[in-house]
Amino acid sequence: MSKKTSFDITVLPGDGIGVEITPVCIELIEKVLTKLDADVSINFTTFEAGAAYYQKTGISLPEEALAHAQQSDATLLACMGLPSIRYPDGREIAPQLELREKLDLYAGVRPVKTMPGLPLPLADERGSQLDFVMIRESTEGLFSSRESFRIEGQGQDEAAYDTQKISRRGCERLFNFAFKMAEQRKQKGKQGLVTCIDKANVLGSFYYMRQVFDEVAQHYPHLEADHIYVDACALQLVRQPWAYDVMVTENMFGDILSDLCAGLMGGMGMAPSGDIGENSAVFQPCHGSAPDIIGQGKANPTAMFLSAALMLEWLGYQHQNQAMLDAANKINQVVEAAYATGDLLPYELGGSDGTVAISSKVFAML
Amino acid sequence: MSKKTSFDITVLPGDGIGVEITPVCIELIEKVLTKLDADVSINFTTFEAGAAYYQKTGISLPEEALAHAQQSDATLLACMGLPSIRYPDGREIAPQLELREKLDLYAGVRPVKTMPGLPLPLADERGSQLDFVMIRESTEGLFSSRESFRIEGQGQDEAAYDTQKISRRGCERLFNFAFKMAEQRKQKGKQGLVTCIDKANVLGSFYYMRQVFDEVAQHYPHLEADHIYVDACALQLVRQPWAYDVMVTENMFGDILSDLCAGLMGGMGMAPSGDIGENSAVFQPCHGSAPDIIGQGKANPTAMFLSAALMLEWLGYQHQNQAMLDAANKINQVVEAAYATGDLLPYELGGSDGTVAISSKVFAML
Ligand SMILES: CC(C)[C@H](C(=O)O)[C@@H](O)C(=O)O
Ligand SMILES: CC(C)[C@H](C(=O)O)[C@@H](O)C(=O)O
Repeated sequence: MSKKTSFDITVLPGDGIGVEITPVCIELIEKVLTKLDADVSINFTTFEAGAAYYQKTGISLPEEALAHAQQSDATLLACMGLPSIRYPDGREIAPQLELREKLDLYAGVRPVKTMPGLPLPLADERGSQLDFVMIRESTEGLFSSRESFRIEGQGQDEAAYDTQKISRRGCERLFNFAFKMAEQRKQKGKQGLVTCIDKANVLGSFYYMRQVFDEVAQHYPHLEADHIYVDACALQLVRQPWAYDVMVTENMFGDILSDLCAGLMGGMGMAPSGDIGENSAVFQPCHGSAPDIIGQGKANPTAMFLSAALMLEWLGYQHQNQAMLDAANKINQVVEAAYATGDLLPYELGGSDGTVAISSKVFAML
Repeated sequence: MSKKTSFDITVLPGDGIGVEITPVCIELIEKVLTKLDADVSINFTTFEAGAAYYQKTGISLPEEALAHAQQSDATLLACMGLPSIRYPDGREIAPQLELREKLDLYAGVRPVKTMPGLPLPLADERGSQLDFVMIRESTEGLFSSRESFRIEGQGQDEAAYDTQKISRRGCERLFNFAFKMAEQRKQKGKQGLVTCIDKANVLGSFYYMRQVFDEVAQHYPHLEADHIYVDACALQLVRQPWAYDVMVTENMFGDILSDLCAGLMGGMGMAPSGDIGENSAVFQPCHGSAPDIIGQGKANPTAMFLSAALMLEWLGYQHQNQAMLDAANKINQVVEAAYATGDLLPYELGGSDGTVAISSKVFAML
């Protein structure tokens, strides 16, 4: 176990409800460290970035913020982007994409773990006891087309082109990450199964991806490896999501399927994520800035709490720091305990519990 | 109303369970026409095609079959492809893709209509009364990359590329089709809403697609038009699929989301489809050839029955032929009546009703 006792965290509250949920999330982390009398301290440094900042300055992600994110131990991001503020070419301001690319955060980890006490979409009881992980490649795939996009032809023949890139390096590191996560989970009693999601029956790049997956899988003979076509996967995630352990896929597919999974958890307000690279990582709730509920106290901080737990867990593993692992566990535990009371129903699920109600219930479990 | 009294249908039973469900489907159509004493006759001409045929002959879709499909009034296809038989480059044999391209079947219609009496995945009651349509573009998008696929670079830098194409022509005809379908549905009491599914916030080709959608929408001021990002859509299809009427999207997105929708209907065995062009159309159940249950009598013919109904309906509209419209209605009605008894539970839903049990129950409702 390491002696590191001080951690630097870059904080990016971003846009919209981001500025409402970030303070309570930091408060939760501080409270947990105090409660555990942990032998670590965390320095939070906050930067403005995002759509509102772009409107003000013409810059969406300031250099200092990027540099700090590069040097700090991890970044905690709330949400960025506002539909009404866009780049001149029509795309939305999404510095989280830039962060993924510039910090080379190739593994987009999206845990799918349901909370007790919520009305969830699936009728089958097992649908309320989900515990698997969707890993979305986050530096290439269709998203990397931002440089190669082109329009060609005239009139009716005019067409727009985006190109998907799937590289050997991108696949190898992604799949190694997935198998290592399955290994860790197996030690905690999970299946030890990695399922690669592709469209290898039709598209060459996915056939390529599947071949690299099979190569990497051979280095983990103690784990199970399986494939599923992306269309069949969308169906199975509706019919029996409990059959999975670690799922791994391309950027665009992962974007789609991880939102489907957020649906299974009760909505984006419940879904945490971590975008992880070799040296940096950004943790953020899956939801957007929710312009429709800004300033109404309705924002659900749960996904950000769970993202903070993911961050502490990652720091704990990276630095072999038990205090951080304990703090991560504690957050997961109190959030779960708060929902287990059955008293909490966030707005998005038809209830009337917002930022304060949810936070105070969670704090009360400490 | 037209005087056409004789229709030619190309029949492609294809692979696996295709040869088990095709005969009962044709039997159903014949019975319905007899029952209604319809003033039309249908000539069915059957061709071999698919993976097994490829193994035997080196050809997956014989010229005569393609030519017949081109000249006949419509094509009824069961399912094609077998995972163990592939082209030399690893892709699966899927002549249905060739048919879509060669017959220019741009509108992939996938009705999402739940049957009564089945255990469906969603807890909310409204999830068992779904009635909307997913339209998948079927001639371009990411699938059209089959010609532009390439591998470049060496070693760790080696990468595979697939390019997505979205053309003005492809968008205009697709969206016009979608709005016309919404118009037809509105006359039957539906919402009259078309929702375009894209990723316009990140990818240029989808931003392009959205712009064409908005242009086309202006020609239908009496209908509602809306957009949703593909990730949010995957979530909403799990949380409130009943909010939609006609949805329309790119080929790959449509492949993924329509299978999700099949999940909402109880599985691929319940999901019909039609791939429709200006002059030709192919109707087929969404499921594959199911090699695991070949020859066991377990194949569910429902999706093929409903695909046949779609075919008759399309022929009815194309040729303003009331007898065909009546026959289509009749098939939908008897299939629904068979499920409404609550006696049917297909294998894929945990029951023990296969081809004979389901067909005979449906026939009994005539
Ligand atoms: C906001 C958007 C650019 C982003 C993405 O598509 O990656 C979001 O959907 C996500 O999943 O993080
Ligand atoms: C078999 C496969 C090529 C096909 C597709 O992806 O289009 C299937 O999934 C479908 O949806 O019709």
